[in-house]
Amino acid sequence: MERADIAIIGTGPGGVSAALTAKVRNKNILLIGKKQMSDKVSKAHQIMNYPGLPAVTGADMAKAFEKQLAMMEINITDSRIGTVYAMGDYFAIQAGGEVLEAKSVILACGVVSGKTLPGEEEMLGRGVSYCATCDACFYKGKKVAVIGYGKDAEHEADFLAEVAAEILYFPMYQDVPGVSEQVTVIKERPKEIFGEKKAGGLRTEQGEYLVDGIFVLRDAVSPKQLVPGLELDGNHVKVNLSMETNIPGLFACGDITGTPYQYIKAAGQGNVAALSAVAYLDAKKREAGKQ
Amino acid sequence: MERADIAIIGTGPGGVSAALTAKVRNKNILLIGKKQMSDKVSKAHQIMNYPGLPAVTGADMAKAFEKQLAMMEINITDSRIGTVYAMGDYFAIQAGGEVLEAKSVILACGVVSGKTLPGEEEMLGRGVSYCATCDACFYKGKKVAVIGYGKDAEHEADFLAEVAAEILYFPMYQDVPGVSEQVTVIKERPKEIFGEKKAGGLRTEQGEYLVDGIFVLRDAVSPKQLVPGLELDGNHVKVNLSMETNIPGLFACGDITGTPYQYIKAAGQGNVAALSAVAYLDAKKREAGKQ
Repeated sequence: MERADIAIIGTGPGGVSAALTAKVRNKNILLIGKKQMSDKVSKAHQIMNYPGLPAVTGADMAKAFEKQLAMMEINITDSRIGTVYAMGDYFAIQAGGEVLEAKSVILACGVVSGKTLPGEEEMLGRGVSYCATCDACFYKGKKVAVIGYGKDAEHEADFLAEVAAEILYFPMYQDVPGVSEQVTVIKERPKEIFGEKKAGGLRTEQGEYLVDGIFVLRDAVSPKQLVPGLELDGNHVKVNLSMETNIPGLFACGDITGTPYQYIKAAGQGNVAALSAVAYLDAKKREAGKQ
Repeated sequence: MERADIAIIGTGPGGVSAALTAKVRNKNILLIGKKQMSDKVSKAHQIMNYPGLPAVTGADMAKAFEKQLAMMEINITDSRIGTVYAMGDYFAIQAGGEVLEAKSVILACGVVSGKTLPGEEEMLGRGVSYCATCDACFYKGKKVAVIGYGKDAEHEADFLAEVAAEILYFPMYQDVPGVSEQVTVIKERPKEIFGEKKAGGLRTEQGEYLVDGIFVLRDAVSPKQLVPGLELDGNHVKVNLSMETNIPGLFACGDITGTPYQYIKAAGQGNVAALSAVAYLDAKKREAGKQ
């Protein structure tokens, strides 16, 4: 597989902006995220302060972005991201079942809305997983719970049902879940993940469910989990004005860098992150040329 | 005169973005700059990386901005800015012949393109001026040179001609100047401002012109001249991620904060600057309430 120049994770205004600028600068890019654009964009009612798009609805903004990406021949790789590993001179990105590679990475994947569940972070990797495609294989013939924060988690529940023996699906949204018959939908609100050395079950307001594993499928993953070694500032990725993180070659933009959570801010930072990534790649190239 | 909550200086993407967001937040704003939008926008050939406006021409972007400002009932105060003084709990802004007041200020006035002339900075305030409306009165019956970097400098040359005895106009652009008959157009490139204690004349590649005063009318003023006490980083205004400068209540966005010089970056920073100004005003109000 070809190693991309820049992998951009997230298809909100930050990721789209970074992709457009990186493409204009002739870089070979990977734009990874939801094909239908980030929910935070497409579900926004109306945006009054995006210069150039007066009183635009989120749906129209998403359509404008999609059209513009198509015009610039930028494809979206529709994958759920697991972990991003800084390997020294490149990055390995767990995306669905694959491992993608890129010379530099821009994190534009937003913030986790709401808190993590008690027990969730403590037992991550010990019965708690954020990626069905990555970890399904550990649950062959077992019983698992899936907490789905968006409709696209349903595909992953269905996929898990092909591997595991029993799936309990907890939808965290209003719509009626469209999962396959093998998946049991439970409309209760998870309150806590419990267990001793590893996760053993899920407690809701109504009761307790003993399971072998719990998949928590949010639209955004906590940055602490996303990139080992990444320096944070509270719940956000620490960046400077050039959108550089503490890891060389790794940049961030948009909500993940902190408040304000605003479309136009994210788009502006995406542009800066892309140009910083381009400068990073150019500097590496010059260094390599000298040796 | 009413004191504005936020004065925004500049009508490029940074200023427009700041104005939209400040207006959405119900602040009483002053947007000061060119009515026809910044030249850097309207004269751009085509912009490929502004998310939401695919392959937009500068002229179309300027039109979109104008329409959106009108929709939001935001007026542009068409004035040339002199100096901005931080008065402690408010700002005094020399704009044309007036002094405007605001509780906070956002600098969105771009960067000076090109270098200053030798002698220019040294003799600023001593025969060199950046503001015809402010300083014309000192040149009654005298001979002055006007170096005009854009067509709107012509109005100021004409205004000076009503006061001074003789005006030499040096256009720094291609178009044929449309100045009044009292103004002598000289198509030579100024090389240096000379003089002892004060400016005494202008040297071009072709010759020397002895004058009593020299007006240098650029689209943007050096930030060092703009706000006394403002901390710079090279030729740019030093800001943090919240777009705060070293002066409380004073914010900056866009090209004036440094590279990259990009439309979408400026728009993103304008949004952040506006929200930081809103937070500043709110904090001041809370403080006042406590006393």
